[in-house]
Amino acid sequence: MNYFSSNFKLGILGGGQLGKMLLNDTRKFDIYTCVLDASDEAPCKIASNEFHLGDLMDYNAVYNFGKQVDVLTIEIENVNVDALETLEKEGVKVYPSSQTLRTIQNKAVQKLFYVDNHLPTAPFSRFAYLSEIEDAISNGGLEFPFVWKAAQFGYDGNGVKVVRTLSDLEGLPKGECIAETLVPFKNELAVIVARNAAGETKTFPVVEMEFHPEANQVEYVICPARIDDHVAKKAEDVALKVSKAFNHVGLLAVEMFQTKNDDILINEVAPRPHNSGHQTIEASYTSQFEQHLRAILNLPLGRTDSKVGGIMVNLVGAEGYTGNVIYQNIETIMKMDGVTPHIYGKKQTRPFRKMGHVTIVNEDLSEARRVAEEVKKTIKVISE
Amino acid sequence: MNYFSSNFKLGILGGGQLGKMLLNDTRKFDIYTCVLDASDEAPCKIASNEFHLGDLMDYNAVYNFGKQVDVLTIEIENVNVDALETLEKEGVKVYPSSQTLRTIQNKAVQKLFYVDNHLPTAPFSRFAYLSEIEDAISNGGLEFPFVWKAAQFGYDGNGVKVVRTLSDLEGLPKGECIAETLVPFKNELAVIVARNAAGETKTFPVVEMEFHPEANQVEYVICPARIDDHVAKKAEDVALKVSKAFNHVGLLAVEMFQTKNDDILINEVAPRPHNSGHQTIEASYTSQFEQHLRAILNLPLGRTDSKVGGIMVNLVGAEGYTGNVIYQNIETIMKMDGVTPHIYGKKQTRPFRKMGHVTIVNEDLSEARRVAEEVKKTIKVISE
Repeated sequence: MNYFSSNFKLGILGGGQLGKMLLNDTRKFDIYTCVLDASDEAPCKIASNEFHLGDLMDYNAVYNFGKQVDVLTIEIENVNVDALETLEKEGVKVYPSSQTLRTIQNKAVQKLFYVDNHLPTAPFSRFAYLSEIEDAISNGGLEFPFVWKAAQFGYDGNGVKVVRTLSDLEGLPKGECIAETLVPFKNELAVIVARNAAGETKTFPVVEMEFHPEANQVEYVICPARIDDHVAKKAEDVALKVSKAFNHVGLLAVEMFQTKNDDILINEVAPRPHNSGHQTIEASYTSQFEQHLRAILNLPLGRTDSKVGGIMVNLVGAEGYTGNVIYQNIETIMKMDGVTPHIYGKKQTRPFRKMGHVTIVNEDLSEARRVAEEVKKTIKVISE
Repeated sequence: MNYFSSNFKLGILGGGQLGKMLLNDTRKFDIYTCVLDASDEAPCKIASNEFHLGDLMDYNAVYNFGKQVDVLTIEIENVNVDALETLEKEGVKVYPSSQTLRTIQNKAVQKLFYVDNHLPTAPFSRFAYLSEIEDAISNGGLEFPFVWKAAQFGYDGNGVKVVRTLSDLEGLPKGECIAETLVPFKNELAVIVARNAAGETKTFPVVEMEFHPEANQVEYVICPARIDDHVAKKAEDVALKVSKAFNHVGLLAVEMFQTKNDDILINEVAPRPHNSGHQTIEASYTSQFEQHLRAILNLPLGRTDSKVGGIMVNLVGAEGYTGNVIYQNIETIMKMDGVTPHIYGKKQTRPFRKMGHVTIVNEDLSEARRVAEEVKKTIKVISE
């Protein structure tokens, strides 16, 4: 099955902002697309050939949708994996695979996968219930500080908390979780690996992430990361090993810590286009979205190096504003050199909701960084 | 009226490939779009918020469509200008203006406009009927060779012919036309000028066009043109003067000849995104489509310089093939460095029909030119 044939259909599970940007590049290649999402207001409702309403966690919704397409991909991990497994058995090409998704959906399983495959990650313990953490502390099996992570359904900084005292555990979800050693680090890095079914592999340059101190969301993504070449090489090698261990097809975004000793530890992975790759749209020879399509359609992969330096700033809802969104001062930032806003099309803002991003490109990365700070100071996502 | 407001609507007359690429950039800015086209299979049918069926030359179709939008633009010149004039009077912002379109739609009027505004163009005579050309030749008022151009409805090399003998006139349309002096030239150049309603103006770099010798369609667009700086400066100055003379808002693509004496003569203009600007998607800081949106929405214009060298190759239907299209060897060209195909989504090919384009970018323009030739030799648009 070849996508250039007239009856080829690509299915996308999830109709959010990542799907929307992916759809943009399907237009370039004239790929017939079907999108499944639970919301009638999903950003993907336009620009897809077919938009289907349905719950991504529902077996029948995912199975019935998947039966209509030739290749099925995702823009969000929380989908019904049993349905994907059945679809795979029935001949649908599912990228990422059900096995990969099952491993990634549960952070405890994901961490065990790294250990089993001799991939570097911070030490951790798995707990079936939050209460077991308290037991471990009281019997000396676990020491403060550590990082609590919910095993499932965490995203954008939810489901992660640094625990320094017993009281930090109050109010956390009661279910399965891990306690990870708090490793002091210099930088948070990410590498996006692309791999097609034929096994061709390419990595985008290592990027550096700066996090908002309160919201625990990425504030700036800087490409390339301002790190030594040998550290960048080490990060790329680790990312390639992870992709290979998963026998992955499509994009795999690997988030990592650079420790004080310049060791690389895997934090977590996302098997799809990722927030840490948005700057590729303007900065790279091939955008991450085009590359994901090339990979899952088993086409040759595109160049992954950068034309220019790129910085990505997330546009998140300002604190104190909930309601119909307004992008205050957007025209001011559009006057700045090399600035491109991407508005995701969500009508309602709320504090820290991802409403869009802004890319800043420049032949000189430090100039891009300066402009990015101006952008950050100027634009504000508020409500009417 | 500001497009960031929730009830803003942008209207586009024409739903072809230019409209499709323009729609792509409206997604980035979350602009609500309405498209009018006569074909139910128009490439713009998806990716627009509203798709309306209707004849672009029909007064009522254009008027009724235009009444529903705040800003109206075009992706093709052959639209009902009377309707646009009424809409302007009734407060719709129409870019390009009805007056500009009226001037451009008729090549005789367009040429007179250049003369009236002291803008350089090849000498010409206007004729109400083809038969008047024969009269002028027989009474010595016109000498061979000259270039015959239909005054109206020519496109993609149709409506233009070099006439060297009386027999070359056989079979030409009988209506209004011009006879233009055949000026020997070194290069065909083009400059795209962007101008917003506030009067801010920017030019994209001068590009050089190589034409297919038989089809009279552009074969390669090379950015930047491989010409002396003083010639490039002269071409930019002429293009800026044309844009100002039209008091134009939006993009104006100015096609020009560089004569043997390095004079610049205007060939013709297009008041919209243009084939000579497709490489801006990959090569420029701002694509021509984003720039057109910025201009007609009266937003600040983006940077127009290039990140890397860019070449554009048109993908036209091969001779001898008519029917359901196949892009032979497209996977082979996708292996080449910096190559991005753009498939317009037309289901049927026929000889010389524009089916897509391929952009080749590289930090070294001569390397891009080498790859472009490989692309040209490799891919073939044929039928099943």
